[in-house]
Amino acid sequence: MNIDGATRLYAIIGDPVVQVRSPAVYTAHFAERGINAVMFAAQASRESFDAAIRGLMALGNLDGLLITSPHKTSAMAFADELSTRAKIVGAINALRREPDGSWTGDMFDGVGFVGAAQKIVAISGKRALLFGCGGAGAAIAAELAAHGARSIALVDPSEHRALALRDALATYFDGCSVTVGNDGATHEIVINASTIGMKEGDGLPGDPGVIGAGTLVGDVVLRPPATPTVLVRLAQEAGAHVVTGQDMHAGQLDAISAFFKGVR
Amino acid sequence: MNIDGATRLYAIIGDPVVQVRSPAVYTAHFAERGINAVMFAAQASRESFDAAIRGLMALGNLDGLLITSPHKTSAMAFADELSTRAKIVGAINALRREPDGSWTGDMFDGVGFVGAAQKIVAISGKRALLFGCGGAGAAIAAELAAHGARSIALVDPSEHRALALRDALATYFDGCSVTVGNDGATHEIVINASTIGMKEGDGLPGDPGVIGAGTLVGDVVLRPPATPTVLVRLAQEAGAHVVTGQDMHAGQLDAISAFFKGVR
Repeated sequence: MNIDGATRLYAIIGDPVVQVRSPAVYTAHFAERGINAVMFAAQASRESFDAAIRGLMALGNLDGLLITSPHKTSAMAFADELSTRAKIVGAINALRREPDGSWTGDMFDGVGFVGAAQKIVAISGKRALLFGCGGAGAAIAAELAAHGARSIALVDPSEHRALALRDALATYFDGCSVTVGNDGATHEIVINASTIGMKEGDGLPGDPGVIGAGTLVGDVVLRPPATPTVLVRLAQEAGAHVVTGQDMHAGQLDAISAFFKGVR
Repeated sequence: MNIDGATRLYAIIGDPVVQVRSPAVYTAHFAERGINAVMFAAQASRESFDAAIRGLMALGNLDGLLITSPHKTSAMAFADELSTRAKIVGAINALRREPDGSWTGDMFDGVGFVGAAQKIVAISGKRALLFGCGGAGAAIAAELAAHGARSIALVDPSEHRALALRDALATYFDGCSVTVGNDGATHEIVINASTIGMKEGDGLPGDPGVIGAGTLVGDVVLRPPATPTVLVRLAQEAGAHVVTGQDMHAGQLDAISAFFKGVR
């Protein structure tokens, strides 16, 4: 890649940022398409976040931002418009400048995951069981509902968090029945969006019910393929379809670059 | 060059920025030395300058800034410490973050020029005549005084501007005699730091006095070598030493990269 005075800017803002892959991935993506643009990592602590994002948004040659931990919720306040899924999740991971100078916020954390799942089975009409109602879980639930899932059962150690997500989903999707708690029914889609599985020795995030060859099992926990989570291992043994955290990340690049491209 | 989450950031802030060469030059300079750093151009209007520079300075992985037109004066307010030459000029073109988190501002506009002159003749003990007391002229005057020039005669259409520069120089350099107006004496160093010579048909910036083979003539006006200013042509015909605007730019890179490196 080259960089000059005419190079358009994108940044990923977070703390820490040394581990983020987006600068290399998006900058290569731009270069391959002959677009004179780079993405750089912008490290901003919680204390400096407001000044940092205001400053980046004040640059006339900066067209978009990615937002990563711990700023996904705080960043919402800087969007003039929010997508429905961003409102449901209560967080954004991307901001773009519109031609009129306003900023639109969106949340793509569920997009890659559900996009990968949708390639295997149609989400429409399916019953889903979702463990974990944090940011990732909320993003996935919003995408499942948007893709026409018939029902979603939400399971979270905090019943309040699950109830809040149910209410947010109900506001925007009245065709999808959302319940809180594991009803013990059989679900065609079972997803772990909790942190259970990150640590060695972690078991299942909860009772997944009957898993068979027709079940789609997803797990957002990022692990090397050789050491799958207990849930993924169970799914593999049952011959079920599996979507992993890797698939979730791969699917985001295309969706976010289309989001940015929409105003380029 | 490559860019990743660990890439250290430098930016040049100005408006416009599409024409600036620093992003390409410094990024190549870093890459050649195996330093994982980039410089990008940050476009900020006068209205958005404060927010923009505050935001850039809030980034934990941004180590330095270059400042170009029209922000060189406004940027001073963001420095915790200023070099003597920055105080004399009343403007900065570089800011670096110190290990304690404070910011030091410096002004290198005169450094490249006087550095190039110093390679040809020792400045110490010389009498200088300087046309133009704006930013470039003030920066060059401060460097001449710092290098031990015996005297500097300042010529500017605004006598107030020349007097203000004389007073600023007198505050810091009592060994250098600074006068306002062309005294008609012979000067070993004659420099044009005014804009005269930029337009086709421009003549001399003023009476340069006697120019001989021993005179050093400088002209900050950037022109193609084939179409020198009237002052440079006069100097060439007299067999004098000549320093051009190109030399001024070339000399800045080393000085500024040493300034940034001082805290790396």
